[in-house]
Amino acid sequence: MDTRPIGVFDSGMGGLTCVRQMIRLLPGEDIVYFGDTGRVPYGGRSVETIVRYARQDVSFLRSFDLKAIVIACGTVSTTALDVLKGENDLPILGVVQPAAKAAVKASKSGNIGVIGTKATIRSGAYEAAIRALLPEATLTAKACPLLVPLVEDGRVHRSDLVTERVVEEYLAPVKAAGVDTLVLGCTHYPLLMDVISDYMGAGVTLIDTGEEAARAAAALLTNEDQLNDPARNGLRRYYASDSAEDFAATAKLFLGKDISDRVERVAIENY
Amino acid sequence: MDTRPIGVFDSGMGGLTCVRQMIRLLPGEDIVYFGDTGRVPYGGRSVETIVRYARQDVSFLRSFDLKAIVIACGTVSTTALDVLKGENDLPILGVVQPAAKAAVKASKSGNIGVIGTKATIRSGAYEAAIRALLPEATLTAKACPLLVPLVEDGRVHRSDLVTERVVEEYLAPVKAAGVDTLVLGCTHYPLLMDVISDYMGAGVTLIDTGEEAARAAAALLTNEDQLNDPARNGLRRYYASDSAEDFAATAKLFLGKDISDRVERVAIENY
Repeated sequence: MDTRPIGVFDSGMGGLTCVRQMIRLLPGEDIVYFGDTGRVPYGGRSVETIVRYARQDVSFLRSFDLKAIVIACGTVSTTALDVLKGENDLPILGVVQPAAKAAVKASKSGNIGVIGTKATIRSGAYEAAIRALLPEATLTAKACPLLVPLVEDGRVHRSDLVTERVVEEYLAPVKAAGVDTLVLGCTHYPLLMDVISDYMGAGVTLIDTGEEAARAAAALLTNEDQLNDPARNGLRRYYASDSAEDFAATAKLFLGKDISDRVERVAIENY
Repeated sequence: MDTRPIGVFDSGMGGLTCVRQMIRLLPGEDIVYFGDTGRVPYGGRSVETIVRYARQDVSFLRSFDLKAIVIACGTVSTTALDVLKGENDLPILGVVQPAAKAAVKASKSGNIGVIGTKATIRSGAYEAAIRALLPEATLTAKACPLLVPLVEDGRVHRSDLVTERVVEEYLAPVKAAGVDTLVLGCTHYPLLMDVISDYMGAGVTLIDTGEEAARAAAALLTNEDQLNDPARNGLRRYYASDSAEDFAATAKLFLGKDISDRVERVAIENY
């Protein structure tokens, strides 16, 4: 049994979709979450800046004695995972490998779509991971720079005409390619699941990268015999680089519950 | 004659709409511009974070010996101007006062609209400045959180259906209020001038806050006899907190010319 907490981070709030699944799958685990809300979004920034921010995020999380870190952010997972792994002596999981595995498993035709931020699509990381598992895959990748601002603005519902219009525009070429599986390559996107699913149709399987990363973390800890007592109630602490009140207010949308007494602010530029 | 440069800053690229006007009105002036592209956008962040970032921006600019600073950012002007003025012993101009003056001058009916980021509209600064000049003004203010992401994504043209749809949604209540003047309370918005003007109609005067701030800076330097030789060609230097190459590429959209040999990167968190 390993009672140390798991560290999880994201550029902002999106990683909470992963935390939600971790709480479901790993109820006994303590979790320390960091959301870089003072510098969100990462997806349009340069590789150099994304790597610098990700190093600070990890450095803050490592002020706790952790057993593993989950990068619950598509942009960091596709752009900085190897650098972070090379510099740290604890297991670090990104969202790419688990999502690629799930996509290959779900797809019958091998015709798979990937959506993500500009940095994510520029990296080609999802395509590479899928091709490594399924060399004959047909892949269609599309950068969707406005989806994170839409989610951060709370515009995630079916009736939102702007969101519907943006989703339609981004996904038209992916739909036209005839994919049977679509990787939501950013942890913000599961909040748009309804709108995306309506547009793509019931025949297309959507892969929730946060959920797959949570599943991979559960498998890792089980295999390494590093689980905490599953009968206990895990303690979750949340840190943000902008206002703790604002974080708690938006977190409700992602977690479906009030966490306002468990959020603290961090001066991330000091890490 | 005062040969010292003028400092100008913004959360990102938007302030270049002001620089463009400054170059036109004050061709002999040296300008040092800082764009916080590593942390843009500011408009959805807390007051505390906006003030902290603005202090660092000013601290970097003051590493030069300046004669004045222009805050070419609606969010910082409405949220942190008084704090910055109190802490610095050189003239600091924001975009609010010049825009309020221009709006009151342009409006025949006193029925005026204001659009800006969440932080800007939350501050009420434009409304207060307009009411101080015209107590009987009828004001309609509307936060437009998606406009900065749209401009940063380059989606500024008439044919963009998403941009048209977003502008229509935000401006519908402003149009319904029957305003004859609309303050574009964010220095990103002049790039959307065509789309906004099409929707509002020819009878509505649009106030470009960057242009008004440039005019106010010209008036200040003229009154204080602090102009540089207007016959010379001013030297302009640009600094950004994310990639210099990315800054130069997007700057073309704002300035209409190539500045790639005059951009440097700054580690703003060290200021």
